[in-house]
Amino acid sequence: MHASQIIARKRDGHELSADEIAFFIDGFTRGDIPDYQAAAWLMAVFIRGMSRRETVDLTMSMARSGDVLDLSDILPVSIDKHSSGGVGDKVTLVALPVVAACGVPAAKMSGRGLGFSGGTIDKLESIRGFRTGLSMAEFRAQAKAHGIVLSGQSANLAPADGKLYALRDVTATVPSMPLIASSIMSKKIAAGADGIVLDVKTGRGSFMPELSGAQELARLMVDIGVSVGRRMAALISDMNQPLGAAVGNALEVEEAIACLRGGGPRDLREHCVTVAGHMLRLGRRLGLEAQDECAAEAARTLDNGAAFAKLRELVGAQGGDVRQIDDPALLPKAQYVDDVIVPESGFVESLDALSVGLAAVELGAGRERKGDAIDHAVGLMVHYKVGDYLPEGEPVFTLYANDETHLAQVRQRLESAVLLSPEPVKPLPMFYDLITGDPE
Amino acid sequence: MHASQIIARKRDGHELSADEIAFFIDGFTRGDIPDYQAAAWLMAVFIRGMSRRETVDLTMSMARSGDVLDLSDILPVSIDKHSSGGVGDKVTLVALPVVAACGVPAAKMSGRGLGFSGGTIDKLESIRGFRTGLSMAEFRAQAKAHGIVLSGQSANLAPADGKLYALRDVTATVPSMPLIASSIMSKKIAAGADGIVLDVKTGRGSFMPELSGAQELARLMVDIGVSVGRRMAALISDMNQPLGAAVGNALEVEEAIACLRGGGPRDLREHCVTVAGHMLRLGRRLGLEAQDECAAEAARTLDNGAAFAKLRELVGAQGGDVRQIDDPALLPKAQYVDDVIVPESGFVESLDALSVGLAAVELGAGRERKGDAIDHAVGLMVHYKVGDYLPEGEPVFTLYANDETHLAQVRQRLESAVLLSPEPVKPLPMFYDLITGDPE
Repeated sequence: MHASQIIARKRDGHELSADEIAFFIDGFTRGDIPDYQAAAWLMAVFIRGMSRRETVDLTMSMARSGDVLDLSDILPVSIDKHSSGGVGDKVTLVALPVVAACGVPAAKMSGRGLGFSGGTIDKLESIRGFRTGLSMAEFRAQAKAHGIVLSGQSANLAPADGKLYALRDVTATVPSMPLIASSIMSKKIAAGADGIVLDVKTGRGSFMPELSGAQELARLMVDIGVSVGRRMAALISDMNQPLGAAVGNALEVEEAIACLRGGGPRDLREHCVTVAGHMLRLGRRLGLEAQDECAAEAARTLDNGAAFAKLRELVGAQGGDVRQIDDPALLPKAQYVDDVIVPESGFVESLDALSVGLAAVELGAGRERKGDAIDHAVGLMVHYKVGDYLPEGEPVFTLYANDETHLAQVRQRLESAVLLSPEPVKPLPMFYDLITGDPE
Repeated sequence: MHASQIIARKRDGHELSADEIAFFIDGFTRGDIPDYQAAAWLMAVFIRGMSRRETVDLTMSMARSGDVLDLSDILPVSIDKHSSGGVGDKVTLVALPVVAACGVPAAKMSGRGLGFSGGTIDKLESIRGFRTGLSMAEFRAQAKAHGIVLSGQSANLAPADGKLYALRDVTATVPSMPLIASSIMSKKIAAGADGIVLDVKTGRGSFMPELSGAQELARLMVDIGVSVGRRMAALISDMNQPLGAAVGNALEVEEAIACLRGGGPRDLREHCVTVAGHMLRLGRRLGLEAQDECAAEAARTLDNGAAFAKLRELVGAQGGDVRQIDDPALLPKAQYVDDVIVPESGFVESLDALSVGLAAVELGAGRERKGDAIDHAVGLMVHYKVGDYLPEGEPVFTLYANDETHLAQVRQRLESAVLLSPEPVKPLPMFYDLITGDPE
């Protein structure tokens, strides 16, 4: 088998065999197949596409390219979740403790933010001392001891995906359904969970602006998971406006804590309860008819302190300063706080999540390039959502900055991110679709 | 401008601007754009194609990536030729002296052979001392002094093409019309000729097995040349069987000498006279109506010794041993000579040029990989051509080898390369088409 023959077959639109895909991915991971051959192959895959079968084989080749976690010897079941990225998405910080508090182990590896989209690992690092770089052994040990673990991705988890992604990033081959789906699912499968809840965002502040694209991606990922024995649920959720009110790392941790104490924005609570409900349901091998009951159980842990206690346990177990959880006033705080007021009143017609996400990056909460440093204290709060009535003179946003010069430029961007209407506006739906799959 | 944006635009099937193409080729030549980005771009070009305008811009970007020869200050006109490669193609060795003998300067840079296809530079190096690595200054000086020069391609002639070709070779992006046409024409344009005769082969022993592909490629190259002011003629010629009788470096030099002395195989003489006729015609700015007269003039130089004298002058000027030209028995000779006889008689229906070319490679006359050493003495003679009657017991081929073990395997390959028919068979045409173009 030769790499150039495999490239030529995909170039000409043929379906590659499992052996061909494994040969290519293994060779690329080892460094026997150079970047330039992988780049040509990626472009051929981008343009010619891949069948379901090829996409599953690609996913499994990438999943097996490094360590593959198996938690079955220490846990009866383990549930994971994944969000396709968005603005103000702190659902993991809430849903994981909720699920663990209900007795279903939740073990998850998370990523860092890039561009307008935040990342759970960055948010957790707002907490002094919190260790996000657990070894595989530590990850397993903590999953067993606490039924909850939340770590950065191990360097040797699906290394083929890491290498391929870096190449896709510079060869215009990122936005491809089979490449996106296999990238996400290879990591989820290697991380060892039995059930996976996918939160696929659609709208202006997501990587899938069109609903149909998000549905296609979700369907593809559910199929991949099912075909390798995972119980799957994929929610298609709105990301035209930010989720909740807080955007920025410490601000989002604080909002997650509020939610875990039974408060926080209504939309965030509903979102977390829905996601956690599906995670519980998959963990207990229950059908969709059990979803309402599971969601209700999730909601109770927010109100009775059980989920909050689980977050404290998680933070303590991973070396974080629990005092900051008990008193979020101890989390990093920005030096400058300033309101953004638009010179009108009316019903909020749109509140552009992308602009809000980019504003947070400009304030220093996110990074433009991999490896850039971020400021955990900065960000912004969104006080009104689509459908709300904004009275004249009330602030739409509050900005938190450590560099005064950032404020003016961000203010301008944010003023044009809000569109008002004299007529009442329907609130945006939270979810558009639910796609499930069960291997049994 | 960013390389990844240009890749994305071609990926999505857009037409690139001249500036975008120049940015990409210049950046790649300098090393600012890495191989992996160029590989992704090449695959996008392969699959999405290029317009005529893009192909011309790509050609000119590559032509300008290194030295560009201008002979107009030393010669009133200069004519070049190019063959797309084949088996037994020693036309350059004959046509260049013929054209120069008629008073039209002929300056050409040639390549080496690869795979089944031989190369003029390898053939010339059969002659002891012949220098194929002339500097640009030496090339110009000899063109001026002798009106004939035949050298290997300078390292700094269209270096972008050299770099891109090496990458295409390992990324399954070789067989693309715009990439092939721009690769060939960039070198021809940088080498400075005013008129270019293209000899585009079609058939089993060529890179364009289908006539329609050869016609498309020829049309594209003629258009490129015309659009940058070159007088162009492209012959579509047969390469289903070898050209002439000799295949192998010194054997082909000997056959070219025979032709230049008025002898040699009939098909070779006719081919050379036709090509040289077009070269003369372009050099004298004459139309197609003058072709017969130019071809007749070319034929006369074969019979009156003028063309042979020009070859002697060329070899002498470039440091070669002229005694080997005067007495070809002094050229390198193989140790083992052996006939191939097929156990039947009949009319030759086909005589597979590809098998013959590969047999020559096995004997050591060609190379499988760039940089492999070759044996100038070895090769084979083809005694019968399509349409000829082969009497029983007569040898079809004579093999020339320096390694006895090669003989058996080559013999088998060659026996199956010949197909006989009891019924008379029509000879193959020599030319299928002629495509011309004139900028005036």
